[in-house]
Amino acid sequence: MALTKPRIPAGTLELLPLEQISFQRMLDVIRRNYERFGFLPVETPVFELAEVLLTKSGGETERQVYFVQSTGAIEKDADAKLALRFDLTVPLARYVAEHEHDLSFPFRRYQIQRVYRGERQQRGRFREFYQADVDVIGKDTLSVQFDAEIVAVIVCVFKELKVGAFTVQFNNRRLLRGFFALLGIGDIEQQALVLREVDKLDKRGAAAVRATLTSADFGLSEAIVTEILAFTEQLSSSHTQALAMLEALKTRGSNSELDAGIAELREVLSAIAAMGVPEANYALNFSIARGLDYYTGTVFETILTDHPDIGSVCSGGRYENLASHYTKSALPGVGISIGVTRLYWQLREAGLIGVSESSVQVIVTQMDAALMPEYLALASLLRQAGINTELHLEPAKLGKQLKYAANSGIHFALIMGSDEQAKHVVMVKDLRKQEQFEVPRAELVQTLRVELEQHAALKLLAKH
Amino acid sequence: MALTKPRIPAGTLELLPLEQISFQRMLDVIRRNYERFGFLPVETPVFELAEVLLTKSGGETERQVYFVQSTGAIEKDADAKLALRFDLTVPLARYVAEHEHDLSFPFRRYQIQRVYRGERQQRGRFREFYQADVDVIGKDTLSVQFDAEIVAVIVCVFKELKVGAFTVQFNNRRLLRGFFALLGIGDIEQQALVLREVDKLDKRGAAAVRATLTSADFGLSEAIVTEILAFTEQLSSSHTQALAMLEALKTRGSNSELDAGIAELREVLSAIAAMGVPEANYALNFSIARGLDYYTGTVFETILTDHPDIGSVCSGGRYENLASHYTKSALPGVGISIGVTRLYWQLREAGLIGVSESSVQVIVTQMDAALMPEYLALASLLRQAGINTELHLEPAKLGKQLKYAANSGIHFALIMGSDEQAKHVVMVKDLRKQEQFEVPRAELVQTLRVELEQHAALKLLAKH
Repeated sequence: MALTKPRIPAGTLELLPLEQISFQRMLDVIRRNYERFGFLPVETPVFELAEVLLTKSGGETERQVYFVQSTGAIEKDADAKLALRFDLTVPLARYVAEHEHDLSFPFRRYQIQRVYRGERQQRGRFREFYQADVDVIGKDTLSVQFDAEIVAVIVCVFKELKVGAFTVQFNNRRLLRGFFALLGIGDIEQQALVLREVDKLDKRGAAAVRATLTSADFGLSEAIVTEILAFTEQLSSSHTQALAMLEALKTRGSNSELDAGIAELREVLSAIAAMGVPEANYALNFSIARGLDYYTGTVFETILTDHPDIGSVCSGGRYENLASHYTKSALPGVGISIGVTRLYWQLREAGLIGVSESSVQVIVTQMDAALMPEYLALASLLRQAGINTELHLEPAKLGKQLKYAANSGIHFALIMGSDEQAKHVVMVKDLRKQEQFEVPRAELVQTLRVELEQHAALKLLAKH
Repeated sequence: MALTKPRIPAGTLELLPLEQISFQRMLDVIRRNYERFGFLPVETPVFELAEVLLTKSGGETERQVYFVQSTGAIEKDADAKLALRFDLTVPLARYVAEHEHDLSFPFRRYQIQRVYRGERQQRGRFREFYQADVDVIGKDTLSVQFDAEIVAVIVCVFKELKVGAFTVQFNNRRLLRGFFALLGIGDIEQQALVLREVDKLDKRGAAAVRATLTSADFGLSEAIVTEILAFTEQLSSSHTQALAMLEALKTRGSNSELDAGIAELREVLSAIAAMGVPEANYALNFSIARGLDYYTGTVFETILTDHPDIGSVCSGGRYENLASHYTKSALPGVGISIGVTRLYWQLREAGLIGVSESSVQVIVTQMDAALMPEYLALASLLRQAGINTELHLEPAKLGKQLKYAANSGIHFALIMGSDEQAKHVVMVKDLRKQEQFEVPRAELVQTLRVELEQHAALKLLAKH
């Protein structure tokens, strides 16, 4: 028979088991912290009705949507055309509108699922990737303090992810628009265009953005563009300095957007401090604009201090109305999204993520086939005690079994031959330290628990 | 603006947050037990290259495969035609063949992901549903003791899922074929056809199966069909009885298939007993055949004692060669699959699953807006102590806040006005018991921990 070459589609990331364990631990950290802050889980179907999914702004070519069709003639109605979700925000809007009367508001949800984009093939670009979102949706109103809570939860997530130094940086689009108005850019449309150029500063650099803004299309004067660029260079290095940046801006003038932006940022800063978020982990950054049109207030980005080249690893912001395509209710919200697949890949490329220890903690080796019932009972004993245990059921030489265990990243191997059996002891081999010691069988569970707990505690210390 | 009606595609199951918490707990229990038994996590892309996915047996119309295509002109090569996975077994075969040289064998993996089938629309049938699979793949050989470990892990899963009484039932296809040969049905093809009819006994009933087997197509005599049907009525009610069923069968004759089937089942039974699996949770059932052609040895089904009408909630078996379409290596395996979405839905229909408690354990209410910094600090304190805490940031009357908390399934509400603030205490309201008590602020974390642990322990007791 001719063989088919086993391979995955371009743009997908598939991991070996020990890598998958590392990745899963990242997802677990994110989920645990999201739940710690009182966010509730939601999952939505991977595909939505195309008509429903693509309502909003309709840019399906832009987003390279994947369409889905079954082989069967089941779905004859045109209505049933399906498409894979390209983010978790549109499904959230649909979810909130559909279940509006069954939800309590403010509705705090987290969602950790994969999304799909038919991106151009490129290293580090994924067509399938995990997003881990938190959002709070209000009915009619939503306190700006929630924006501060978003910063606090993301700081907790990234601290526990152990990615080194980082800052959640934020700004406010009303403040930016107000500032542009001070400079004489009063037209809403033009403000939006300038916002979009400011958002490109990271990628294009100041010179290119200056060239665009002073071109005939924009027609801004050199002096004004200089003011804009100088303004966007401001990044706070402490809480006090962030407040001073806002204070200094007030002296430059006043209009309703600017004043509102400043007031909102003050409230966000004050709530962040009240929650005890470390100063090193947040900053006010006047260059953050976010390209997406739907953000209306606070906007967030997250930067890894030692890897600024990676760009923002977690971004989001506040929006005025989440679900205007699906419901007449006014649903303001604020949220943020971690692109987990990309983050994992980047951390691995940067050497910040190694291969994980196995989720298997102990392996029971097979020294003597006649003792198999004893090995089976021993494995059961450990499993009942909550220890992740593999049993080497395939006969093999002990050396080969131990090598397999070491290669698999398993911490402890248990060895029991007829001698140990007669003495009611088990030989415990620590495959990390290459030490071994005899333990009375009655004390085995307790001994392994202590060893595993000590190891976990030491690992935690080493990383802090 | 015209509104689009927010709705999900037919055949998908979307849950409200408290339901999602229940569902997530099921997934967590499954994952925890799979890991406890030393299985390693694997995830594969939701779509595979159609050419790779549909190699095996090719029945794409039968399986109602979903095909995927991006809007872009990116994927111009015919090769890149994509399809959604319809199970986790074909992706496992592809994964093992693709990563063969990076994996250790026997390779023990679990995978918990959604799969897609364009099923006919029908109540309780899903087009998107979770499967939770465990498989062990050997290289060249694989001890039959792994079949016993599969039974043990599934028993642990279902015990912890608290679905009431259940049995993992099993049989062996070699034993069935050997028995058919004793009756004079020696042709392999005809054996397979009879196996398939036996598999339908549950759904069609004995009379219909008898009619088919005695029809001209099959041409089996009434006497032989009577023997087959009597044989398949045997179901053990204890370990001893299971062994006796095998012993009695030996007295009826001998051939290589029958003898091998009996020997394998004996070994499985003996290993199950050595692992201490309770007798009530497993049984030998001679009627289990499983329709799928690729099973070659042990076959499994799982029955909820009080809900036999639901049918098998977890099925699987042993196969000779997992990945013959992708590699020349011989990769025997054994595995089992829980259809989690269907199981959840059925348990809910049967009233066995209620709405869960919230994952939010405590809510900090807002009594006095001036004290907001105190509330923010209080919430941080609890979160740092590992307590899932929501903060009511939106101003509202206290009664409304407490009603929101009770409706949301939150256990404790904390109340602190200026009086409590002055006395350095917090009022703790237990929303389940409708009791409240004052706690010094310094003792709050410890008090809540004890309360939550007691509650968890009582809940565990109540369910046992």
